[in-house]
Amino acid sequence: MDSKELILQRSNEAKEIYIPHLSADPVIFGFDQNELKVLLLRMNYRHQWFLPGGYVRKDEDLDDAVVRILKERAGVNAVYLEEFGVFGKKNRSEAYFEDFDETLFHKQRFVTVGYYALYNPSKINLTVDEYSDSCEWINVSQLSEIEMAMDHKEIAEKALQTLREKISIKPIGFNLLPEKFTLPELQKLYEAILGKELNRGNFYRKIKNLGILKKLDEQRKGGAHKAPDLYSFDEEIYNQALENGLISW
Amino acid sequence: MDSKELILQRSNEAKEIYIPHLSADPVIFGFDQNELKVLLLRMNYRHQWFLPGGYVRKDEDLDDAVVRILKERAGVNAVYLEEFGVFGKKNRSEAYFEDFDETLFHKQRFVTVGYYALYNPSKINLTVDEYSDSCEWINVSQLSEIEMAMDHKEIAEKALQTLREKISIKPIGFNLLPEKFTLPELQKLYEAILGKELNRGNFYRKIKNLGILKKLDEQRKGGAHKAPDLYSFDEEIYNQALENGLISW
Repeated sequence: MDSKELILQRSNEAKEIYIPHLSADPVIFGFDQNELKVLLLRMNYRHQWFLPGGYVRKDEDLDDAVVRILKERAGVNAVYLEEFGVFGKKNRSEAYFEDFDETLFHKQRFVTVGYYALYNPSKINLTVDEYSDSCEWINVSQLSEIEMAMDHKEIAEKALQTLREKISIKPIGFNLLPEKFTLPELQKLYEAILGKELNRGNFYRKIKNLGILKKLDEQRKGGAHKAPDLYSFDEEIYNQALENGLISW
Repeated sequence: MDSKELILQRSNEAKEIYIPHLSADPVIFGFDQNELKVLLLRMNYRHQWFLPGGYVRKDEDLDDAVVRILKERAGVNAVYLEEFGVFGKKNRSEAYFEDFDETLFHKQRFVTVGYYALYNPSKINLTVDEYSDSCEWINVSQLSEIEMAMDHKEIAEKALQTLREKISIKPIGFNLLPEKFTLPELQKLYEAILGKELNRGNFYRKIKNLGILKKLDEQRKGGAHKAPDLYSFDEEIYNQALENGLISW
């Protein structure tokens, strides 16, 4: 079946199953080999890149919908996704399916809810759904170069901005680093998310002041240089900071 | 016209004008006389308290909808409202209009988008719309006691939690205090938002460390005690902190 026929065929079932006018778009970030990536699909129809989004069932909570959508479209099992923005401009979605007539489910006005999460890509087996010819981790530095459908580039950039703000507020990194890590490894994570190099001295001072790190009585061995100290997160203080934020009054 | 007849009459026009399944709920906080309040309506029908929410026009951006809704329902001219959460559980809204049959516009499943803003109530003239018998600033400490419709209490509480997190991240207060204020006045604002008393010494030290205050060469005169120093916000640093957050890497 060609890609247009498939969409046409799915339209009628979609009207039965889904709420009109509402969609959900997960923005999944991955930190891998010191680079920050985002999970995108390329649709067979028109070959543009998309977030792995979808529609909300009539009998389904919105929070459950986004988890199901991400699983169906990319094979990703998400435990928790955080809502970061709602995209509700008129005409944001209507024009994309220009080859179809107005009765197509996909061609109506959709207000979409954006959710994000941050994962370690090496722990995820991606799958490709029936609408797509590719499902990949794309480096965020390439976002400006690729052609994305509708306002999906804007949605991905808002998610990235939210993630950047988030690391000034809440600790990030527990699931992205090995249990024991060096300060240079932690700095690489912050640099990948912030998209800029940080001054080493300033970073060490600020991160230590937060009190979420525990210096271990071990060093990382095997390098040519002086063996660097290993750290882990102080789980109790880390969890308190997740709950209350890094500044408490 | 009684309150049921009015809703019935509005239902048919609503189907013409509005998108189904989507609503917006503004949570407007006011800081007045050292107390934090929230703006609520009481509907004629069933006499429960509501947020001043409403529906989204088919030809209207979502951001414009929430501003129009707030103006229509409470007379409040909002320049900017910040989205803080989406409430999308199935059955969150359907049961409220139990006296009506299923064809009523108001009785369908609505996913609602929550927005919040913080104002000085003395600068706002509230009005009461056709559905309501009251539009009032309710003290947030009373929220637990009053009966609110649907999940509106949960929405208001999530907004309050967001506001509390926000003051650990971004400066708050520019529009809520006189141009020149004392540290005890600023502390009252923080205490009203956080809902707890703060230790004076800790608060002074933390707020001064943020660098957003400018100590003036003036004192507040006229009290019985030693005249307290006056402060104003350092506008440049305040705006930087609004942009980048209070911790920058």
